[in-house]
Amino acid sequence: MAKTIDLNADMGEGFGPWKMGNDAALLDVVSSANIACGFHAGDADTMAQTMQVALEKGVGIGAHPGFADLQGFGRRRIALSDAELAHMVTYQLGAAAAMARSVGGEVRHLKLHGALANMASESEAMARVCYEAALKVQPDIILMVLTATAMEAVAKDLGCAWAGEIFADRAYNDDATLVTRGTPGAVITDPDVAAVRIVAMLEAGGIIAQSGKVIPCQIDTICLHGDGESAVPMARGLRAKLELSGYDIHAF
Amino acid sequence: MAKTIDLNADMGEGFGPWKMGNDAALLDVVSSANIACGFHAGDADTMAQTMQVALEKGVGIGAHPGFADLQGFGRRRIALSDAELAHMVTYQLGAAAAMARSVGGEVRHLKLHGALANMASESEAMARVCYEAALKVQPDIILMVLTATAMEAVAKDLGCAWAGEIFADRAYNDDATLVTRGTPGAVITDPDVAAVRIVAMLEAGGIIAQSGKVIPCQIDTICLHGDGESAVPMARGLRAKLELSGYDIHAF
Amino acid sequence: MAKTIDLNADMGEGFGPWKMGNDAALLDVVSSANIACGFHAGDADTMAQTMQVALEKGVGIGAHPGFADLQGFGRRRIALSDAELAHMVTYQLGAAAAMARSVGGEVRHLKLHGALANMASESEAMARVCYEAALKVQPDIILMVLTATAMEAVAKDLGCAWAGEIFADRAYNDDATLVTRGTPGAVITDPDVAAVRIVAMLEAGGIIAQSGKVIPCQIDTICLHGDGESAVPMARGLRAKLELSGYDIHAF
Amino acid sequence: MAKTIDLNADMGEGFGPWKMGNDAALLDVVSSANIACGFHAGDADTMAQTMQVALEKGVGIGAHPGFADLQGFGRRRIALSDAELAHMVTYQLGAAAAMARSVGGEVRHLKLHGALANMASESEAMARVCYEAALKVQPDIILMVLTATAMEAVAKDLGCAWAGEIFADRAYNDDATLVTRGTPGAVITDPDVAAVRIVAMLEAGGIIAQSGKVIPCQIDTICLHGDGESAVPMARGLRAKLELSGYDIHAF
Repeated sequence: MAKTIDLNADMGEGFGPWKMGNDAALLDVVSSANIACGFHAGDADTMAQTMQVALEKGVGIGAHPGFADLQGFGRRRIALSDAELAHMVTYQLGAAAAMARSVGGEVRHLKLHGALANMASESEAMARVCYEAALKVQPDIILMVLTATAMEAVAKDLGCAWAGEIFADRAYNDDATLVTRGTPGAVITDPDVAAVRIVAMLEAGGIIAQSGKVIPCQIDTICLHGDGESAVPMARGLRAKLELSGYDIHAF
Repeated sequence: MAKTIDLNADMGEGFGPWKMGNDAALLDVVSSANIACGFHAGDADTMAQTMQVALEKGVGIGAHPGFADLQGFGRRRIALSDAELAHMVTYQLGAAAAMARSVGGEVRHLKLHGALANMASESEAMARVCYEAALKVQPDIILMVLTATAMEAVAKDLGCAWAGEIFADRAYNDDATLVTRGTPGAVITDPDVAAVRIVAMLEAGGIIAQSGKVIPCQIDTICLHGDGESAVPMARGLRAKLELSGYDIHAF
Repeated sequence: MAKTIDLNADMGEGFGPWKMGNDAALLDVVSSANIACGFHAGDADTMAQTMQVALEKGVGIGAHPGFADLQGFGRRRIALSDAELAHMVTYQLGAAAAMARSVGGEVRHLKLHGALANMASESEAMARVCYEAALKVQPDIILMVLTATAMEAVAKDLGCAWAGEIFADRAYNDDATLVTRGTPGAVITDPDVAAVRIVAMLEAGGIIAQSGKVIPCQIDTICLHGDGESAVPMARGLRAKLELSGYDIHAF
Repeated sequence: MAKTIDLNADMGEGFGPWKMGNDAALLDVVSSANIACGFHAGDADTMAQTMQVALEKGVGIGAHPGFADLQGFGRRRIALSDAELAHMVTYQLGAAAAMARSVGGEVRHLKLHGALANMASESEAMARVCYEAALKVQPDIILMVLTATAMEAVAKDLGCAWAGEIFADRAYNDDATLVTRGTPGAVITDPDVAAVRIVAMLEAGGIIAQSGKVIPCQIDTICLHGDGESAVPMARGLRAKLELSGYDIHAF
């Protein structure tokens, strides 16, 4: 029986005259694209173009909302009220949904970006506000959640469709948090190493921490990084190895 | 048999800490609200609040997209490509549609704002790009067009639902353009005068120019201004007079 | 011998089409104006107009930099690096200085706004970064600091010109922090009460806390609020009472 | 006797997380840097870093103000009032001046960007508004003007310091306007060809149009493009050829 896994990456992160990442190449590798919605990156034109290519390549389109902070790329934590958070997600998801429809596609999933994602992975209250806002607008949307975090707890509790995500290139602590960048082994740069590790996790049915400890969890999608010179070779290498290991790559 | 007419006004034109107009009072007078979508005014919170009240008062919700120019309030002409125009409309309409859904309502109509409206009323090509973008996303949306302009010609040609709009407080030239502000009689400030004039136009089935010339056209909605100290009294006065003249006020 | 005190208020807090406060009226009352620099409020046109009127009325012009957050009015805390903080202050001060020069005036003082001020009043490190950035550009600028906070400690340590500020309308705790809004007596709305209280503090040479405790400190300027319906009557009332009590109102 | 010429390029055109051009390499080639001021590109951090490196390499620092239009990169024409134009230039020049001072340098020249430059090269009224605003703030600033345009006429009339600029890589019509892109020969991509052409113009004391016609004018600086893969090789090649031809490269 075929084993399948989804590969996802952030996309459409240019703005106006500025480009970021190699979306065209990555869209040949991933099966799900998380597309910036204009608040932390992306603009209406970039969204439309990215979604058009994603659709042509059969890649699942996701809305990737973030804080309204272009200069900080959505990576700065901003304290918002629950209502502000909800409206921010609703607005961006709506814009993305219309843009997807305009190119003949649809938004299938939602993934929070940057500081918004970090905060929601630590706070069930915040994850709940964001996810309920999205579900109110599109009840069948699939939430892409970081496994073994507050996001997953909320998604389960909401009883909605969700996909559990792990990182291809980051080592994990025993509590399923990421090993801090700068610590030896925190970031994996060799696609072969990454592939072996991901396959082991998929076989084990959970995250394998740096210590060897297995943290059982649902793994539906692997997050690839889209930025940096090595992003595309890493992504291609990982995909090739996963296919060699018997995995079909397609959207959850 | 009951005669009906719609009254519309621009709404939700605050931004962040700044307020504009008296939306609460106007929503008791109008039957359609054109709600700013965050590009020239409005933000996600203001949109949500305005739509919520509109829904409660039974006022039709409209998306009111404009150029991305907060400082200029969307009143500065900006030259965009067709693709940029289309994406700009799609993005804002999508955001508005999701926000309306989140409060339990829906976007019924679309009206272009400010310089975008001025440009589209002069250029069929530009009106077509904007309208086709909106219809692609929401085929049953009602386009609110300035009667006897390029907007109307395009709406008719597209075969979609549309509503013809005239201004309550502006005098018209013989070619259906507005008499320039500053010219004697260009702006009507007395609600009784405005009401008599509007009723005459509705009975005549067309715009009555300053010269007395009748320009036959379809009049479905009357545009009230929401800003300025006299906006609410003017709106209330006009509505009262229209009702006295036998008109029911409700959304097209 | 004449006793003098400065009255200050935030000004120029409109943006584009949106107004805030009654600057024209307040500029007849205060002796120092803290003028928004375009990041949290204000724009180049509003700055120029406000500075022009301040100059005509002999009111001292101050730069009032804040976080780049129009929608949040600079009231949301944003985590920035030291370099980002410094550059943010430098940029806004420079813009203000040029604008003041263009109307024939000059920036005399600097006051941090909103969340930036709150953070700097709690953190000497942050206050130092902001103040050093300002002094590097304009070594003779007068820093307006909240008395008995980290701001004052840093200003003293830097050996630069500074002015200690207290609030006209807020009660103080024994540690010189403000009594939380909502607590009985936290906000003073009667100008007579405010005036009596301010005069008592000036005579006592320090803040008088709600408990009656005197916290010795240098008081050079009284902060008036510019927003809200009661702002102008409160400001006028306070000024009149201070003058009756023998104080000349002019800039530090 | 030594012949000298200035080479200039636009710099600091990144924004937040986005980079543009290879400033570090270009700063080894040019003698004047036109640094974006945060309205069409650039942010306070990028400005500071670019100015720091320019200072270290002995490259003249220039303010490069543009329209407030990040998404359009300042390339879209926006209709502003004279007051708005003046304030826009004042604000950006002030911010640049403070930032230059904070790294120990100073702004020496001013060059208008993009659509603002295009419009000012066609309209003496508009050039005058922009230039007078800059001179009011900094009377000794050197205006970098497109030779044989409205800009030059105004600079001459104002009696201020100015430098005449031509393009290294663009062919000219007989009226000193640029040959439209797309026309054969409109854009020169070979540094040798460009150098021969520039040297011929310098010797002739004027622009040599595509037709061979000489348009006498003052040439003080050559504009290099900073963006695109070939920008740095082109710039290096041109500089080398100019030096071989006996020209010293340094700021006007």
